[in-house]
Order: sequence, then C-alpha cells, then structure tokens
Amino acid sequence: MMPPFGLLHRRAWASLFGQLLRPSGLVCIGEVHFHSQVSEAVLISQLKPHQEKSNFVIKTPKGTRDLSPQQMVVREKILDMVIDCFKRHGAKRLDTPAFELKEMLTEKYGEDSGLIYDLKDQGGELLSLRYDLTVPFARYLAMNKVKRMKRYQVGKVWRRESPTIVQGRYREFCQCDFDIAGQFDPMIPDAECLKIMCEVLSGLQLGDFLIKVNDRRILDGILAVCAVPQSKFHAICSSIDKLDKIPWKDVRHEMVAKKGLAPEVADRIGDYVQRHGGVSLVEEMFQDSRLSQNKQALEGLGDLRLLFEYLTLFGIAEKISFDLSLARGLDYYTGVIYEAVLLQTPAQAEECLSVGSVAAGGRYDGLVGVFDPKGHTVPCVGLSIGVERIFAILEERMKTAGLKIRTTETQVFVATPQKNFLHERLKLISELWDAGIKAELLYKNNPKLLTQLHYCEHMGIPLVVIIGEQELKEGVIKLRSVASREEVAIKRENLVAEIQKKLSES
Amino acid sequence: MMPPFGLLHRRAWASLFGQLLRPSGLVCIGEVHFHSQVSEAVLISQLKPHQEKSNFVIKTPKGTRDLSPQQMVVREKILDMVIDCFKRHGAKRLDTPAFELKEMLTEKYGEDSGLIYDLKDQGGELLSLRYDLTVPFARYLAMNKVKRMKRYQVGKVWRRESPTIVQGRYREFCQCDFDIAGQFDPMIPDAECLKIMCEVLSGLQLGDFLIKVNDRRILDGILAVCAVPQSKFHAICSSIDKLDKIPWKDVRHEMVAKKGLAPEVADRIGDYVQRHGGVSLVEEMFQDSRLSQNKQALEGLGDLRLLFEYLTLFGIAEKISFDLSLARGLDYYTGVIYEAVLLQTPAQAEECLSVGSVAAGGRYDGLVGVFDPKGHTVPCVGLSIGVERIFAILEERMKTAGLKIRTTETQVFVATPQKNFLHERLKLISELWDAGIKAELLYKNNPKLLTQLHYCEHMGIPLVVIIGEQELKEGVIKLRSVASREEVAIKRENLVAEIQKKLSES
Repeated sequence: MMPPFGLLHRRAWASLFGQLLRPSGLVCIGEVHFHSQVSEAVLISQLKPHQEKSNFVIKTPKGTRDLSPQQMVVREKILDMVIDCFKRHGAKRLDTPAFELKEMLTEKYGEDSGLIYDLKDQGGELLSLRYDLTVPFARYLAMNKVKRMKRYQVGKVWRRESPTIVQGRYREFCQCDFDIAGQFDPMIPDAECLKIMCEVLSGLQLGDFLIKVNDRRILDGILAVCAVPQSKFHAICSSIDKLDKIPWKDVRHEMVAKKGLAPEVADRIGDYVQRHGGVSLVEEMFQDSRLSQNKQALEGLGDLRLLFEYLTLFGIAEKISFDLSLARGLDYYTGVIYEAVLLQTPAQAEECLSVGSVAAGGRYDGLVGVFDPKGHTVPCVGLSIGVERIFAILEERMKTAGLKIRTTETQVFVATPQKNFLHERLKLISELWDAGIKAELLYKNNPKLLTQLHYCEHMGIPLVVIIGEQELKEGVIKLRSVASREEVAIKRENLVAEIQKKLSES
Repeated sequence: MMPPFGLLHRRAWASLFGQLLRPSGLVCIGEVHFHSQVSEAVLISQLKPHQEKSNFVIKTPKGTRDLSPQQMVVREKILDMVIDCFKRHGAKRLDTPAFELKEMLTEKYGEDSGLIYDLKDQGGELLSLRYDLTVPFARYLAMNKVKRMKRYQVGKVWRRESPTIVQGRYREFCQCDFDIAGQFDPMIPDAECLKIMCEVLSGLQLGDFLIKVNDRRILDGILAVCAVPQSKFHAICSSIDKLDKIPWKDVRHEMVAKKGLAPEVADRIGDYVQRHGGVSLVEEMFQDSRLSQNKQALEGLGDLRLLFEYLTLFGIAEKISFDLSLARGLDYYTGVIYEAVLLQTPAQAEECLSVGSVAAGGRYDGLVGVFDPKGHTVPCVGLSIGVERIFAILEERMKTAGLKIRTTETQVFVATPQKNFLHERLKLISELWDAGIKAELLYKNNPKLLTQLHYCEHMGIPLVVIIGEQELKEGVIKLRSVASREEVAIKRENLVAEIQKKLSES
C-alpha cells in the first residue's frame, strides 16, 4: 500500500502531469489495492466448495490486461495530447467497428495475417477483430466513395502475437492514427505527417528522438540494381529491416546462408543499406551510377528531395534521417515510409542508442483501390502513434521518480463530527452536486470525524465542508483546507459561492 | 451534399451543443460524402476484372456501423457530459479487455447467454467478447481482492441480437457504467446512483423522464405469496417485465396459456404488479396482509422506504416511481433495481408515453462472490447509461431542426492570392502550429484564392491569414474574418499574438 502522502519529485518530464498535481506539491493515490500490470493466475478455487469448477482461475486473457485507475489517468493524459495535436491539424474523428468481415482483412498484412483474431462461426457472417486502423479506414473510404478526408481514429486493435510483455507488446493495444486521403500535390501531406510526429513526441517530452525516412520505391530500386531476383524482394527486405537490431555481418549472413543470395549481391546491398544521413545523402544517391538508372528509385529520390525541402520550412529537418535500411513490415505501403525512435544516451555508452519505435507510418496509394469495385483508388498517407510504448515509458519514469497521481478529481468532502447528521450531509452534498462541484461523503450513518479527515488526506481532496450541531444552530458551516488545516465559518446560504471562490483561487 | 452554410435553428435542447456552434449562429458541415447510418451492401464487384472474388461486397458486419465525424462530435459531447457527472461523484476510471475468458461470462446472463460472441479457437484459451461492463468489473474486484471501489467505465460491448436497427439496437454498442462496490450502510450508495441518473438525464436535456424502481426481493415475495411455484419464478418474471409494452390482459393470457399458471394465481399477481406510485405505495405494501408475511419482501420494502427518504433529501423523489412490474432481465441483480424512461406527450395522446429505457441498473451483491475462490463477496450497486439511445434521440432532433455541426476545430486558414507561395505558406502555418493554433492550408502548390476562401466558408473556419507579394514586401500579413469579410494588415512578427487575441475575443 502506498503511504497516504508522497512528496513529489518534480522532474523535467513531469511537467506533462502538471494538471494532475495539487498546487502544494503533494499528491496521493486513491486506490486501496493494486494489481500487477500483467495478470497471471491469481486465484485457484479447487479447494473451495462453492466454486463449481475445479481449476477455476481468475485472470484476463493471455496478452491482455486491465488498466487500473492510475494507469487510466496517465493514458488519458497522453491520448488528450495526441488528439489535441491531430485536431490542430484539422482532422475529423472517425470510428469503425471492432470487427470487420473476415475477407476485408485477408491479404492486407502479408506474413502477419496469421496473427488476426477470428470470431467463431456462430451462424451468419465470418468476422475478424481489426488488426489495425488503416485497413478499416481504407474500407470506409471505398464504401462511402469518399475521395478526400483528413481523419483521426483512436481505438483498440488486436493481434495474436506471442506476448513478449517485457517489451510492452500486448495482444490488445491502443492505436492513434492520423491519415490524409486525397489526390494532392506531392509531399505536402507527407511532410505534415512528419511534422505531426515531431509535435507529438516533443509535446510528450519523451526525450530526444529521430525519425528515419525511406521510400519503398528506393528500396525496390536498390534490390533491382543489385540484381536480387524479384521473388526474393520480400524476404530480403525483412532481413534489411533487422539492421536496427543486429549488425550488418549477421544480416549479410542471413541473406546468403538462409535466403540463398550470392555473396557479391549481398555486399552490393550492404553498400547501400548501411547508409543514413540528411538531404545530402539524397543528392548523393541521385549521383549513384547504378541507382540513377532505376526509374522507381529516381521517383522516390525526387520525392524525398521535395520532402526535405518542406521539412526544412517546418523547422524539423534535423530530426529526420534518410535511412536506407528502413523497410517497415506491412504490405500496403507504396511510397515514403517513416519510423520515429527515441534516443537515449546511456552513461556508459558514447553513441546514442535507439530504444524502439514510438511512431510510424507511410504512404499507401493502392489500398483503397483494393476495396473499390472499379479499382478506383484514393492516395493516402498517414501515421500511427505507438501509445502503448509511450504509456510504458512514462509509467516507468513515474515509478522511478516516485511520482504519484490522483485518480479522482473530488474537490470537496462533506463531513460531520456528530452522530445522526446523515440527513444534513445528504442535503448539503446534493446542493454541491447540483452546482457542479465534485463532492464525496462516506456511505455511513455515523462515521468518525478522524476517519473522514483521513479519507480526504488519503484521496488528496483539498476542501472539507463540516456541519454539526453548533453550525446548524448558527446557520453556518465550516470550510476546512486539508493542506493548511485552516477552518473558516461561512454562512450556509453562501456555501456554494464560497467554495467556488476557494477553488478558483487554488 | 450539404449547402456550405446552414442557418441554425436554435431550440431549447440545442444549448447542449452551444460550444459546437460558431458565435455568429452559422455552422457548417465539413465532409464531402455521407454514408447511411447502417451499412448495407454498397458495392458489388463481380463485374470488375481486378477484384479477385466475385460477389465482393463492401460493408460493415451486420448490426454494426461506422460512426461518421458528425456522429462522433455528438457522441463525444454526450460522453463528456456523462463522464463529467461520474467524476463529480468521485469515480475513478477503469478499463478491461474487450474479451474475457469464455468461462468468466457463462452463467451470468441467464437466457441471454446465447447472445455472447465467442472467438474462434485458434489454439490457447477460449475467449468471448464482453457482453456488458458489470461482469468484467466484478471479475476485476475478485481478481485483485479490491473490497471497495467507486469506478466508471466507458467502452463497447457486443451482443449477437437480431438487429432490429429501427429501434436503435446494434450488435456493437457503447456502455457508460458507474458502480459502487463495498460494504456500506444501506441505501446511501443506491440513492447516489439514482441521483446520478437524474443528473445525467437532466443535464442532457432529453425532456421529462421517470425512474421506475423496484426490488428483486419484493418481486420474489409477491410470487411466493401468490403461490407461484419456485420453478416458474423466472418465466413469470419475464412476463411481468412486459407490462410496459403490452396490457395486463395479454400478460395474464401469457401466464395462464403459455406458462401454465392457474388463472386465480395470475389474478393475484395482477393485483400487485399493475400498481405504481410514490413512497405512499411502499407504506401501503407494508400493510398488505399477504406480502407483510414474507420476510424477503419486508426487507425490500424497508430498503425502499429508506431509499425514498434519501431521494427526498436529494430533491429527486418526484422523479421516482415505485413500479411493481419492473423486473429487469439480467440474472445477477439481488436487491433494488431501476430503469429510467423518457416521457413524451404526443399531441394526440393525453397520457404520457414511455419511449424506452435510457438508463438502468441495480444492486448485485452476489456477483463478486461467484469469482472469489472462497466465495467472499463484495456488495455492489451501479447503473448504466444507454448512450446509444441517447445518441439516436439527439441525432434525430438535430436532423429535424436542421442543426449542423462542425467536425473540425480549425481556427485559422493560411491562404495566398499568388502563385509560388507554398514556401511562405508552409513557414507561416508551421509557426501557427508551434504556437498551438489549429490551422490548415490546401495541399496544392498554386491554389486559387477563391477556392481557399470557399474552403473556409465550407468548413466554418473563422479566420484567414493571407500572404502575397505585397505583404511579403511590407513585412505584414492580412488577417481576414470569414464572417464579416473584414481584413486588417498586421505586422508579420505579431502574427501569433494578434491571432490569439482575435480568437480569445470571439
């Protein structure tokens, strides 16, 4: 159990939670019991006579978890900031069902399709839980013949991954997507997507970050000019994508030994995909004697050049790295792709270390066309904020800093020092509620005053209204500040006005 | 397509949407295409060569729907009000997974259990989509040994009902639940639940409403003293529950002809369940010679007497009707039960007509114990707001009133009258975004000024920043009010400050 009060260690990043903290710098936790973040077998009932089944285990499904009030406060704070940013860029909110017709999702996710949750055939349509928010968006556009839309969507998605929960991977998780659909002049919406990623990551004060950018056409061009057979593009891409986790020699080994690539082809690829840099690398690639022969690659390079122009105007070019190893898993991307990683400078290491992707996206110009009966497509570009990772990072930081947060917003507690004052308390609290004041009392006929005051301290409630014999006789009530323990008598009829005054002061 | 501007007819109830409306009283719709509320077969592709499957139909699953940006604005407004009320009463937010272990849900919903969506067995645990938010809450309490908690939860639930969409019943819908768990003095939390229902329904300005209250123990007592065999309690209860839809003689017929009750037993039941009234009816039932012999019924009546005492102190007693026909479907209720209905006075009818339940709940003291290995239980009472019905009602009213709402919150549009000004526009909008101003531009290199201004009118954007040759030379920009068409030149460096001033004025 947490102590009723924990002194707050303010850190730079904690300013994000400024509004959650009481002005005194004292905060407290309101829940009595805590549960582990990831549920495991908690209770086994075979010993208990009244439980009908033996081996009765109470838990949440594998890879899922409940979110406690503490976690919900952090989560909602983050979501609010992300949504604020999406609205700043003129997006509308959309919602789609948790499940889609099974056939809507098939053949959209490449080798990950096996991770889709299907619903049981209980008669009627075959259904699957959504795997992301992008395919439902494309389905929505095609179904409603929408040719142009800037939308955001926040919601849960489900993937049957082997839960490696240590890395913060769950089978149920939240996605926050922003997408721009429509035929526009090149790279303007794409640049805005990168700007949004920067705004969100800066706003959340997660520390230094970098956005890797590449283009599917450049990657395809590289494989083509290196003489990789078309049939091996997919497999080789997925090897290249591992370069942020394992060194080139291991990736090369995988290409040659496991995927049957000629060593000299692998070496040629290695010359390209180990490179990253700014706009100057784009220009360098334009000069590359082999790559400049490939039409696709040239298109991608041209777009990247334009993208960097716009990113400079947005003041974020230094956050962007043209990274030739970035491949991204999903099948539907057709042009520019990007991925934001947090950078950490560990005390022992000299170089910055990437701690995993926290936002990603890209251009998918063909997906809507797959759903349209005439194949008419709507070019799209978008991004997804990896809020689960961000939650995990901020939760961890709060734990380290000993930062605690209120889980309720109660402003006033209604207390009495005397017996038989329930009626007065109920009348009083009803007035407060009707005036929009957040108020609580104990659900007891005759609670002890100390119990009531302790509850306020424990829950971080700033004000107490006290009513007793004396106050009733005099037509007043006492207003007590929990932090200072000061009490003032105020007229009963001024109660609401005085409380509102007091609350607006603090 | 909607006209770019629609004059707003302000109605009393429309004040709910005050914040959504522009001060000028002009609002507009931002999306180009609309879709029907419930998706049906939209596209068939068998004629199209590039679609691999014939009979390819793009739709959402039966009984589900997308929520358009317009619908999302209304929905979020309502959810905000409901959540505000829950927070006013000191509740913490909880979240649970969309699916539970199948066995957690079985035997909790009586005859409705067949409506549970199961997931396909893809190896591993057997899972089902949650059917409500109450059972997951009870599972959470038992699993974490929480003995006391006031929580709210907002989320989707799924039920495989025959979709009678006309009545606003979907297979996927949103629930907003508030519950108080813990051992407390009688009827204080129960009274607060009813107070919350009143606050929500008054706050949403849905019109006049009534909350029917009964107690499972009174209902059981009535059946017992009327000599209904215990085995028929369930069946007879479900007949009684129909009294709000069909007249007594039909209910009686069902009891006698279909459920094999002796006519005189049915008549005895009829004497009770056709009655409704205020606290005086509670006192009358206390005097009833048969019912007063039944211990259970007396307990229920005693609690209702106390409940009415508290409701009077809360100033809501006149909204409550003790209704002996209220039974409620779910199996887990053990004490007081309630259901709020909207009342309408149609022009032709003299009596008020009920238009269906918009909120409901009750006491379920045994449910947590079912999950606890030792059978230790935690008494609970709670309520659920039927937000889908409320959405449907408000949407319908907005349609009738011709009320339209903005789906974006964009404050400023960045425009130019000249060609080759994309760079200036991008620099300018980036400054606005960085200052937290909601801003948009057209994703075109050289848009026409008229197109840009039309977009602002169409989308209801109040301000336009205009930059051209002249302005660039003079170091100024023009700030234009879309409504008044007034333009003022302001210094480039004061841009953000001037806009913020302008926005705070409106």
